[in-house]
Amino acid sequence: MESKPKLSMDKEKFEWMKAQLYVPIVCDVLDSLGYRNQAMHQRLRPLDADNSIMVGRARTLHWMEMDYIEDDPYNLEIEAVDSLGPGDVVVHSTDFAGTNAPWGELMSTIAKRNGAVGCICDSMVRDCRKIIDMKFPVFYGGIRPLDSLGRGRVMAYDVPVRCGDVIVRPGELIFADFDGVVVVPREVEDQVLEMAKEKVEKENQSRADLLNGDSLRAVYNRYGVL
Amino acid sequence: MESKPKLSMDKEKFEWMKAQLYVPIVCDVLDSLGYRNQAMHQRLRPLDADNSIMVGRARTLHWMEMDYIEDDPYNLEIEAVDSLGPGDVVVHSTDFAGTNAPWGELMSTIAKRNGAVGCICDSMVRDCRKIIDMKFPVFYGGIRPLDSLGRGRVMAYDVPVRCGDVIVRPGELIFADFDGVVVVPREVEDQVLEMAKEKVEKENQSRADLLNGDSLRAVYNRYGVL
Amino acid sequence: MESKPKLSMDKEKFEWMKAQLYVPIVCDVLDSLGYRNQAMHQRLRPLDADNSIMVGRARTLHWMEMDYIEDDPYNLEIEAVDSLGPGDVVVHSTDFAGTNAPWGELMSTIAKRNGAVGCICDSMVRDCRKIIDMKFPVFYGGIRPLDSLGRGRVMAYDVPVRCGDVIVRPGELIFADFDGVVVVPREVEDQVLEMAKEKVEKENQSRADLLNGDSLRAVYNRYGVL
Amino acid sequence: MESKPKLSMDKEKFEWMKAQLYVPIVCDVLDSLGYRNQAMHQRLRPLDADNSIMVGRARTLHWMEMDYIEDDPYNLEIEAVDSLGPGDVVVHSTDFAGTNAPWGELMSTIAKRNGAVGCICDSMVRDCRKIIDMKFPVFYGGIRPLDSLGRGRVMAYDVPVRCGDVIVRPGELIFADFDGVVVVPREVEDQVLEMAKEKVEKENQSRADLLNGDSLRAVYNRYGVL
Amino acid sequence: MESKPKLSMDKEKFEWMKAQLYVPIVCDVLDSLGYRNQAMHQRLRPLDADNSIMVGRARTLHWMEMDYIEDDPYNLEIEAVDSLGPGDVVVHSTDFAGTNAPWGELMSTIAKRNGAVGCICDSMVRDCRKIIDMKFPVFYGGIRPLDSLGRGRVMAYDVPVRCGDVIVRPGELIFADFDGVVVVPREVEDQVLEMAKEKVEKENQSRADLLNGDSLRAVYNRYGVL
Amino acid sequence: MESKPKLSMDKEKFEWMKAQLYVPIVCDVLDSLGYRNQAMHQRLRPLDADNSIMVGRARTLHWMEMDYIEDDPYNLEIEAVDSLGPGDVVVHSTDFAGTNAPWGELMSTIAKRNGAVGCICDSMVRDCRKIIDMKFPVFYGGIRPLDSLGRGRVMAYDVPVRCGDVIVRPGELIFADFDGVVVVPREVEDQVLEMAKEKVEKENQSRADLLNGDSLRAVYNRYGVL
Repeated sequence: MESKPKLSMDKEKFEWMKAQLYVPIVCDVLDSLGYRNQAMHQRLRPLDADNSIMVGRARTLHWMEMDYIEDDPYNLEIEAVDSLGPGDVVVHSTDFAGTNAPWGELMSTIAKRNGAVGCICDSMVRDCRKIIDMKFPVFYGGIRPLDSLGRGRVMAYDVPVRCGDVIVRPGELIFADFDGVVVVPREVEDQVLEMAKEKVEKENQSRADLLNGDSLRAVYNRYGVL
Repeated sequence: MESKPKLSMDKEKFEWMKAQLYVPIVCDVLDSLGYRNQAMHQRLRPLDADNSIMVGRARTLHWMEMDYIEDDPYNLEIEAVDSLGPGDVVVHSTDFAGTNAPWGELMSTIAKRNGAVGCICDSMVRDCRKIIDMKFPVFYGGIRPLDSLGRGRVMAYDVPVRCGDVIVRPGELIFADFDGVVVVPREVEDQVLEMAKEKVEKENQSRADLLNGDSLRAVYNRYGVL
Repeated sequence: MESKPKLSMDKEKFEWMKAQLYVPIVCDVLDSLGYRNQAMHQRLRPLDADNSIMVGRARTLHWMEMDYIEDDPYNLEIEAVDSLGPGDVVVHSTDFAGTNAPWGELMSTIAKRNGAVGCICDSMVRDCRKIIDMKFPVFYGGIRPLDSLGRGRVMAYDVPVRCGDVIVRPGELIFADFDGVVVVPREVEDQVLEMAKEKVEKENQSRADLLNGDSLRAVYNRYGVL
Repeated sequence: MESKPKLSMDKEKFEWMKAQLYVPIVCDVLDSLGYRNQAMHQRLRPLDADNSIMVGRARTLHWMEMDYIEDDPYNLEIEAVDSLGPGDVVVHSTDFAGTNAPWGELMSTIAKRNGAVGCICDSMVRDCRKIIDMKFPVFYGGIRPLDSLGRGRVMAYDVPVRCGDVIVRPGELIFADFDGVVVVPREVEDQVLEMAKEKVEKENQSRADLLNGDSLRAVYNRYGVL
Repeated sequence: MESKPKLSMDKEKFEWMKAQLYVPIVCDVLDSLGYRNQAMHQRLRPLDADNSIMVGRARTLHWMEMDYIEDDPYNLEIEAVDSLGPGDVVVHSTDFAGTNAPWGELMSTIAKRNGAVGCICDSMVRDCRKIIDMKFPVFYGGIRPLDSLGRGRVMAYDVPVRCGDVIVRPGELIFADFDGVVVVPREVEDQVLEMAKEKVEKENQSRADLLNGDSLRAVYNRYGVL
Repeated sequence: MESKPKLSMDKEKFEWMKAQLYVPIVCDVLDSLGYRNQAMHQRLRPLDADNSIMVGRARTLHWMEMDYIEDDPYNLEIEAVDSLGPGDVVVHSTDFAGTNAPWGELMSTIAKRNGAVGCICDSMVRDCRKIIDMKFPVFYGGIRPLDSLGRGRVMAYDVPVRCGDVIVRPGELIFADFDGVVVVPREVEDQVLEMAKEKVEKENQSRADLLNGDSLRAVYNRYGVL
């Protein structure tokens, strides 16, 4: 895992993002810089529509499908979850078989207690009512009540993983809201945030002009955003 | 596009439909007339469950998947959206790749301002919270924050399109509620509405008799509806 | 169909289950006894998130896809639904074509009147608003407004069926909540319920210890649940 | 089943078709008459590439997926196969589950002995080497060595069925070659054959002119075929 | 891995199976003993139709999808392949992503040299022409020219794996021919082979009687096989 | 379209590639240079296994799915095919609907006459026997006898297209053999060919050493290829 930026700076940045930006704008900026595969697949949806906003840094878990039970099957998974800290977003690699729920109530409890700000689980989740009640934001691929034991196992953590068809590197910025999840690569992070802020303003002006009666053609010609 | 019926008549018809009919009844009547492929695929769901009812006439956009950016990429799309008028329902052709969101906040803003009554987007949508807040009804295939630029482009509008596995011709009557979307062909439009009204009454009687203690067999024999 | 247990006993058991257990716990216990394919596929979701809990015994309907209309097409379906009684859960076999809705308002009305406690429909459903309003719990595979006439037909009932990728035998215990649907085989029914009660207690202790500051590793070592 | 045309006439017609026509031409003619859904899905392929031509009349079997074993499970299937006669093409309805092989060596043996000219099985087949050796033409969806017992059952025969995404009515003309399978509806059968003959001639002329050095544009303008 | 039976015995057994049995018969016998999920999925096809027969014992490799390159990425894979011996069948676990070819020419060369009798690769294969030329039997899920490096990695070998939707335990008997691949569990191995021999004889008699003019009904009543 | 290299040079290069290289080696080299998405999807297979080798430059056609018939529907398609020249490989963009065959006998006839060396059609093909007989190499996604008329239309040619999940730019080098199709980007073309030649030699040495009795571990340590 790359060296982590100072927490205080991240905390400030994350709060600013929540207040100023939204996910589609960040996607448009990434597109314009040539990063066109950073938005996760639409199968990942928020468990709680009213609690879908998430900004933090990726802590990845790499899963393998299994069909037998090994000794100490939860070993690395427990180690990874116990290592979570403030501002972390748990990112589970894609479970291609889609037959088990590696995230549930106890995991959410410890993650939240440790300061993690959310979880992206490209597999099943369970104990959903309790997770919603504790207000821990989760994006998930499906809801199914089956444990991972004998179905999947964490083989590594803090490594690059595939999640929602996007490659996520440990420490990368994760931004999620009701419109989905976007992953911002380190090398363009600050540039993306600045450009996104500018684009928000153009959209605000476009909306105002449309409501004032201008045509879409006129507004698009004026601001160049759609 | 076929010549459009007078707005006043349509407006009246649409209000009557909203008050008297619901989508499954219209599907049953179309079935009985041999029109068995008029209900869109279940992947199309309302963005706002509390604002899913829509009655109007189809204004179609025909999309092509693309993998590069052309000059003036939004040309026909802007023209089509600027041409929307009262009672129109925007119908986007199926995006087979399913990788971009051709409908969002600005589109909904101008569509609503122009009097359009809803949008059926057999692709992704974004800016969902804002669309919900402006109470513009949308059916969608998925939610993903990606712009269409370099992913898809409108090649024609007001032409027959495939949407939700149904062929929709411009000007056809679109009726949607929480149960889905049905397309009523012009040549049977009035007949369908009349027959649907009769069927609603039989269902009301069936329900009453069931609650009075009759068996399903007895009620079915009596009214012939299920 | 196997001889049915006395209703009074079942009623008591079902109430106890609703109060004491939840679906993932029951799945974990079934896993531990070697029954690893008892949780239905994630495509089956509750129609009403606030009314998803269901405990009862399976009354199965076996459907066949059809492409023509026979005489008396609803014959066995009506017979099956009229035979529903207290504590029954209607279980429709998988509709592989996924093109019609065999469950709707009238079916829910008679089922509820007869004392049935819910329906698992591995196909489409319709009249959803009315079903939600009458507070009859339904799990479904999709929402589409099309009748089964000429699309599918009940060929047998109270036989083993496949539903949500699980084989369900008539009379088996069905338990559903927001996390999904589990089928408990007769031969382990009482054992499963007892073991589940014990596991709930361990989870309660785990949660408490986690909130008290223990690590996941410590808590897992102490109680052995995750 | 509709009354069958006299065998002698059919036999002559079938031989003529084998000698004069090929499947894509027949599809083009059906398209031009508005019958655009008569070519089976590409998943249906000939078991023996060197023995893929088949002309005859549909004898349909309607299958249902099952998950238990009934008494006399092969009853209707045996009855149907024993009833096969000269010029018949066995058409199995789609097995959506795709888990068993309803067609194999013994079935091919009796079908061939009875004069049937081929089999379209929209499911699995087995005993493939022996079927190839006996030169009985089969189109299939997959090869898997599992019997239908407890996996599927014939519920009716000589009824309309769905096969390769085409509705096939008993007695309809089936024409297959390496390019696939087309179903010719009764009401246009003779018209289609006549028109197809004409189109073959135009294609022959187009080919000759292309080889003589004309451009595709010139040839298309001249004959109107592609 | 379980203790391996003496090679001499296995060799004899395998030769006898090749001469006397075929895969569908073995599947039918397994079905009759309640082992109904032992035939691999139809996506697994022989690379060389003329060299598809394979009898041996499973040597399993368990793969994980990856999206980065580790140090010594081929470590366990090389170790496993170097450990192959006479009568072994290489069985690769399912590659759900389906994007790389873990089996090619060099692997086939060393496997064959070590005495292995074939490979079942539920993923892609490459160097196909050379593998066919060396007459090493392979069943595969697809053909694609991409190496596994940075796409997948062997995490364990001689463990239970999922291949073609069947759980394969190390040392289990693998039997493949043109009709597909079946896995025979240890605990019924000898019983299955004996029963299969008997069934072959009944099929021979059935075929003869059919060709002598008996109906399928008569022959089925006489021998009870289909 | 980029300026085309001189034909004489290309011709020489293509002959050298056919004699010296094969597709998997080229993929490995592209992988090592960071071009990891250049091998087409496994659904694209050669129509004629004995005539699958193809080296040339991409001439792309961009298709759109349609559901109605326009005036002059074949316009751009005819123009594109008439413009084919020596060394060209026709590359059809993905037909997501997969319902029609844009490539057949007449197209192959004119393409071959004009000097084109093959066709990659990520859709259906028809007239397959005749195409095989004229020895024109084709890779295809499926075989189905339906014309494109009213199902799809060429909207542009010599533009970037998606084919087999790879973006193909006009003029890029296409290399296909029985193992699949790889697209070599212009900017690394010469470097890739040189490096591939070196890798072929290492594989030859590895093979020889394996056959001489070395272990895979020893050979891999020696040459570093697998």
